[in-house]
Amino acid sequence: MPTATTSFRQRVYRRLFDQRTRSGRRVEAFFALFALFSVVLIFIESGIGTQYHLTFEEWHAFVWLEIFVTLVFTFEYILRVLCWPKPANYVFSFWGFIDLATVLPLYVLWLWPEIGIHYLFAWRAMRAVRVLRILKVLRFMPSLMILWRAIARARQQLILFYAFIAVMMIVFGALMYGIEGPQYGFTTLNASVYWAIVTVSTVGYGDITPHTAAGRTIASILILIGYSLIAIPTGLITSHMSAELNSRRQSRACPHCRHIGHEDDARYCKACGGALAE
Amino acid sequence: MPTATTSFRQRVYRRLFDQRTRSGRRVEAFFALFALFSVVLIFIESGIGTQYHLTFEEWHAFVWLEIFVTLVFTFEYILRVLCWPKPANYVFSFWGFIDLATVLPLYVLWLWPEIGIHYLFAWRAMRAVRVLRILKVLRFMPSLMILWRAIARARQQLILFYAFIAVMMIVFGALMYGIEGPQYGFTTLNASVYWAIVTVSTVGYGDITPHTAAGRTIASILILIGYSLIAIPTGLITSHMSAELNSRRQSRACPHCRHIGHEDDARYCKACGGALAE
Amino acid sequence: MPTATTSFRQRVYRRLFDQRTRSGRRVEAFFALFALFSVVLIFIESGIGTQYHLTFEEWHAFVWLEIFVTLVFTFEYILRVLCWPKPANYVFSFWGFIDLATVLPLYVLWLWPEIGIHYLFAWRAMRAVRVLRILKVLRFMPSLMILWRAIARARQQLILFYAFIAVMMIVFGALMYGIEGPQYGFTTLNASVYWAIVTVSTVGYGDITPHTAAGRTIASILILIGYSLIAIPTGLITSHMSAELNSRRQSRACPHCRHIGHEDDARYCKACGGALAE
Amino acid sequence: MPTATTSFRQRVYRRLFDQRTRSGRRVEAFFALFALFSVVLIFIESGIGTQYHLTFEEWHAFVWLEIFVTLVFTFEYILRVLCWPKPANYVFSFWGFIDLATVLPLYVLWLWPEIGIHYLFAWRAMRAVRVLRILKVLRFMPSLMILWRAIARARQQLILFYAFIAVMMIVFGALMYGIEGPQYGFTTLNASVYWAIVTVSTVGYGDITPHTAAGRTIASILILIGYSLIAIPTGLITSHMSAELNSRRQSRACPHCRHIGHEDDARYCKACGGALAE
Repeated sequence: MPTATTSFRQRVYRRLFDQRTRSGRRVEAFFALFALFSVVLIFIESGIGTQYHLTFEEWHAFVWLEIFVTLVFTFEYILRVLCWPKPANYVFSFWGFIDLATVLPLYVLWLWPEIGIHYLFAWRAMRAVRVLRILKVLRFMPSLMILWRAIARARQQLILFYAFIAVMMIVFGALMYGIEGPQYGFTTLNASVYWAIVTVSTVGYGDITPHTAAGRTIASILILIGYSLIAIPTGLITSHMSAELNSRRQSRACPHCRHIGHEDDARYCKACGGALAE
Repeated sequence: MPTATTSFRQRVYRRLFDQRTRSGRRVEAFFALFALFSVVLIFIESGIGTQYHLTFEEWHAFVWLEIFVTLVFTFEYILRVLCWPKPANYVFSFWGFIDLATVLPLYVLWLWPEIGIHYLFAWRAMRAVRVLRILKVLRFMPSLMILWRAIARARQQLILFYAFIAVMMIVFGALMYGIEGPQYGFTTLNASVYWAIVTVSTVGYGDITPHTAAGRTIASILILIGYSLIAIPTGLITSHMSAELNSRRQSRACPHCRHIGHEDDARYCKACGGALAE
Repeated sequence: MPTATTSFRQRVYRRLFDQRTRSGRRVEAFFALFALFSVVLIFIESGIGTQYHLTFEEWHAFVWLEIFVTLVFTFEYILRVLCWPKPANYVFSFWGFIDLATVLPLYVLWLWPEIGIHYLFAWRAMRAVRVLRILKVLRFMPSLMILWRAIARARQQLILFYAFIAVMMIVFGALMYGIEGPQYGFTTLNASVYWAIVTVSTVGYGDITPHTAAGRTIASILILIGYSLIAIPTGLITSHMSAELNSRRQSRACPHCRHIGHEDDARYCKACGGALAE
Repeated sequence: MPTATTSFRQRVYRRLFDQRTRSGRRVEAFFALFALFSVVLIFIESGIGTQYHLTFEEWHAFVWLEIFVTLVFTFEYILRVLCWPKPANYVFSFWGFIDLATVLPLYVLWLWPEIGIHYLFAWRAMRAVRVLRILKVLRFMPSLMILWRAIARARQQLILFYAFIAVMMIVFGALMYGIEGPQYGFTTLNASVYWAIVTVSTVGYGDITPHTAAGRTIASILILIGYSLIAIPTGLITSHMSAELNSRRQSRACPHCRHIGHEDDARYCKACGGALAE
């Protein structure tokens, strides 16, 4: 028999955190938007801080806002731990970990005030992950499924592709390390492989670049291979997604005249005008 | 009963600005090409100015041309305001705002001569937006609709994609800010997120680059994720556009033999030779 | 009545330059490969010249080879002019112009020896265009037609796309010119638009980069727009090419059982085994 | 009649190296994972070496590990040579060459100790190629076939595309060499073509960039052409891959009701419920 406390906890859980109820989705959306607000705050703070060269303690408004944000998140975390049907399930879940981690920065500063302020900034910005919670509320999952199934179908080909890319990056990185040597920025094997990744992906920072004729020739070959390869993952995902969309459309036949090929949002058969099943 | 003035205004409106008449489309094309001419002029002026280090007042020809362009645009704006059926509709529309904004630079210089000349240059170049008016005349809208509907169908997946990208940029930007710190160009959180945007999009300026081993490892991971993700919006738009084109083709059946799958520009059925409906 | 000279010219033309004869295609391939050889030579010469800091006159072997190449091309040009049915047709055609232009460098050096040697190098390298002649022989044109028709069908959408891109580049270039100003590399309006082109295309040299917070925000917006837009031309070309391939396949029905959807290289119907028409 | 030695060799070959037996696939996977381990080791070594500025001889643990790895690879190579049905087939095959080449670095250091240590590092990293062996075991080949056939079908169009790209790179490289000249980094024709490759592929290092107005205009044109062209190989591969997937699906008809268009992993007809052939 459930005690009064348990049933109160259950009621709070159903009201606030159960995604199947409307109030639960509203609370989820509220905390996601609050996280978005806290992230925007951090960026404004970072922007102003740079311009006026203030230290953390001088921005009174921002300090109070940060304390407020931390208190709200702490309250939310404690409430969730207390109300969850099985608290351990929440604490050791992905969101439980994220919620705890993004509450901590201010407490850490309080305990160890000698910590570098820029580490705390980086830490606080991680609250951006919390914003993703809003996706739960928006119920975008069916759309995501098409994308996900296309990737799952192209799985083997994508693994093959990345295996080839990885080996190619190591081989070309090693070649450049041998040819160019440490005097042109290719100081270690790791730096050379980093260069190969930056090159194949067409990012091309230019912090490390070949200077010898042989190095430039090898780099050109790597670039041309990379340029050709970039079409492959796009082609794989696109063609599998097309097949997925096509098959969904073809599997939707008119119950009256058996006509197939209706758009996703069609409600009447385009051949006979009969109502289509949803 | 309309007064003589009103009916004159109506006639001028129909002649010059009504897109449904041929003369209206010609006037629209004329002003779009005139805007193109004024933009080309600004670029020539900017190019010559750099080469010979002249001040604005020394380029007599360009000053006179600018005055001429401003007078034409002013005349056009006044005419539109006077002739429009409901002037407020025009003044507060997108094009009304653009027309007014691109008329002003010279008047502003005349009123406040101490303004920086390069602000005026930037302002005058905004006239490029006016060139887009020609698209109204070219009636490209049906083609645009296919593209637009493909984007609308992929809407949810694109929002999901950009939400993930945005969170990833903030998380990786914050990580790099923590790891590399201000001594390697990652001076603020904002600069780090700017770096993450430049990296994921494969632009890769190289003005801020990682220098520590840990930073380069994180950067490599971000680059590889970005490289994989770039295939997703392309795949989404392509597959929805393919489905759209496919469904348009399939919805065009021969009225004689019910054969489907005719090209857009086919006028006769490829199976029975009967005429197709347009 | 044709004179003996005319008929001799006609015979030489049919033997050497008529693409419908086997010997004509062989001569075409020979001159294309000779052009390839001359281009490779120029790159070897350029590579060696840099390494040993020689002047043009000191590379005896390369001078003699260049004279030989020029003589062969001159002989080919004169032969073509003499043998063509209507010489003017050849001289004023695309290939006639290319053939003449790539013969000239050495003669120009001989007439005006004071010309900069690096202009001649650039000029000689233009011989690469001649190599494209081999495509005529390889008869790749049917393959090219599918690609070409896909681009033609996506014509309006591509024009729209490039019009938007062009206007966006000018608007964002002008914005950055106003915001960042000449002190950060955005020296002229033209340089700012060049920066916008380099950014939207994700090339990202990094020779001009934003340094102010406002400039970086605008740049980030431009990058994110560019990142989204890059999917559009790919989507357009891919979906139209898919539709093209699909329609070619669907228009190939088995004459025996009317089954459609045969691969391009299928020679027998996959449903009834009957021979398909080519 | 086979001798005892031969039959013992045969048994060892079947057990260890024959991919058709389970034990053979396990041995293959073991050596691939061992190669992966040796590559990871090299990168850790390279990372630590940079941080503490040690010479090769000072890292005792890594020296012993490298000796161990070399011995295992040497043992594997000798075993393969001894057991292969026809040893010459193995020795002169792709994998025989790779196996021999990646065994050698330590022996070379032992014979010629004066060799530069960074050449050996580069050489050792080539062991990454060995990791690809695991793909043999994973039997990904059917997936690879779809990709391969799509590329084979787009063969002619891809050759055309790369021929145009190559000629365009040489022509634009030569143009920039003529316009910008050696004072802005375009020191040789080869460097200019390297710049064109870096630009068209959107890598954009920024080590060589145009500085004159004319050079920037030409560069902008090249960038815009490159930006448009990048859609073509993607479009080709995607549309051929889609056609390939589509034709596989269409060639799978239900043996009971002739319904086509079943997914790859469907086992029952979606129209009549009858079992499909695999």
